[in-house]
Amino acid sequence: MIGIGAGDPDHLTLQAAKAIARTDVFFVLDKGEVKQELVDLREQILRGHATDGQYKVVVGRDPERDRTSDAYVESVDDWRRRRADVCAEMIAAELGEGQVGAFLVWGDPSLYDSTLAILDDLLDRGELSFGIEVIPGISSVSSLAARHRVGLNQVGRPIQITTGRRLAQNWPEDVDDVVVMLDAQTAFTAHTDQDADIYWGAYLGTPDELLIAGPLAQVAGEITEARAAARERKGWIMDTYLLRRRRS
Amino acid sequence: MIGIGAGDPDHLTLQAAKAIARTDVFFVLDKGEVKQELVDLREQILRGHATDGQYKVVVGRDPERDRTSDAYVESVDDWRRRRADVCAEMIAAELGEGQVGAFLVWGDPSLYDSTLAILDDLLDRGELSFGIEVIPGISSVSSLAARHRVGLNQVGRPIQITTGRRLAQNWPEDVDDVVVMLDAQTAFTAHTDQDADIYWGAYLGTPDELLIAGPLAQVAGEITEARAAARERKGWIMDTYLLRRRRS
Repeated sequence: MIGIGAGDPDHLTLQAAKAIARTDVFFVLDKGEVKQELVDLREQILRGHATDGQYKVVVGRDPERDRTSDAYVESVDDWRRRRADVCAEMIAAELGEGQVGAFLVWGDPSLYDSTLAILDDLLDRGELSFGIEVIPGISSVSSLAARHRVGLNQVGRPIQITTGRRLAQNWPEDVDDVVVMLDAQTAFTAHTDQDADIYWGAYLGTPDELLIAGPLAQVAGEITEARAAARERKGWIMDTYLLRRRRS
Repeated sequence: MIGIGAGDPDHLTLQAAKAIARTDVFFVLDKGEVKQELVDLREQILRGHATDGQYKVVVGRDPERDRTSDAYVESVDDWRRRRADVCAEMIAAELGEGQVGAFLVWGDPSLYDSTLAILDDLLDRGELSFGIEVIPGISSVSSLAARHRVGLNQVGRPIQITTGRRLAQNWPEDVDDVVVMLDAQTAFTAHTDQDADIYWGAYLGTPDELLIAGPLAQVAGEITEARAAARERKGWIMDTYLLRRRRS
């Protein structure tokens, strides 16, 4: 599993570049969505670092997820099982004895990515045998903080990384600094009563990068509009943000 | 500000390598401690990526921090002010008009690092004028998760990153997955009553790397001993860990 950073091809680490160079087969789950730019970016990385004529790319069809389900964890578990089936088929069919296969993961493989759980699941099933190496990547969280030139934490204070779904319910207890990922519902709009700043970024590290920061109550509307317009224009969006409550 | 990763020279990103190559002056705050390995590692990175004969390294004396003070935030603020004084002198004396200066930061500049706050402070003082670019790095947190081959979060769940000082007081509310940095007091030993696993790592990415994982109550003693022995042997330690409470 190779973390390839948050969108800028130069986020690639030397370790990741070396791992790409020694990979025989790259496995890709094709989401079938209109994210051609991400496919192009991945290809740019392979052209730059994989060993010419020595590798192949195998694309599997990513199963649909039931996004209507209220049972969030169960629907994710079911989806993950079906993804694991697809991966098992690809690995069994395409990876030879002693060969190295790789999954390229946007951002850092340890943050809200299911590839590792899928591979662990495949090992548990006992039908395939392989070793796993994980190569860390620049997360969208680190990228967000760097682009806004802010730290994630205040002195001696904690940071919570959470999802839009959870932030919509409540601001986490005892934490002033909250990083939100996977927010399809602009959950920050539920907290404009807080004396807080927001640092928002979309398409981080890419030429389309958007950055907006300011007092939450003042810029929430601007972010909501910029987000909707960008999503409409490009057909997809990936964004994240830091909420920082001012300490009294 | 250039994040240079958690200890492995190959954690360097292509973006960081390019930034190092165009830097004229590297500023270093010398902690005066016995961390010769970290100095060597930094020099190895400069030899590998800085432009031969075109750069200089300027070392300032890092002021002592009052670690006896009970007023943690105030003592950190005061320390930071004195560090800013040292940085202001170095920059004014050594960086010419139009030149590029760099601070190399272990891990990721956005996590528990004070360099950015120091530079912002210098700009606020109004005596110096410069632009700031932050280049993200592989954090020790990403490195820890990669080496243990675990995700930081569970499906749809939050993660809290906090300090040993805070964990010693209590396990954070509503969070099962807690990453702890800056823990000089093995605060995990206060929570061996929890049904939790720990993933601990020290000197991550270096040849001396130590990794221990398992049920917290079972391995807490082993970690405490390994940590004390390593610290005794090397004279310093940098470690971090993930605590993962099992969900009922």
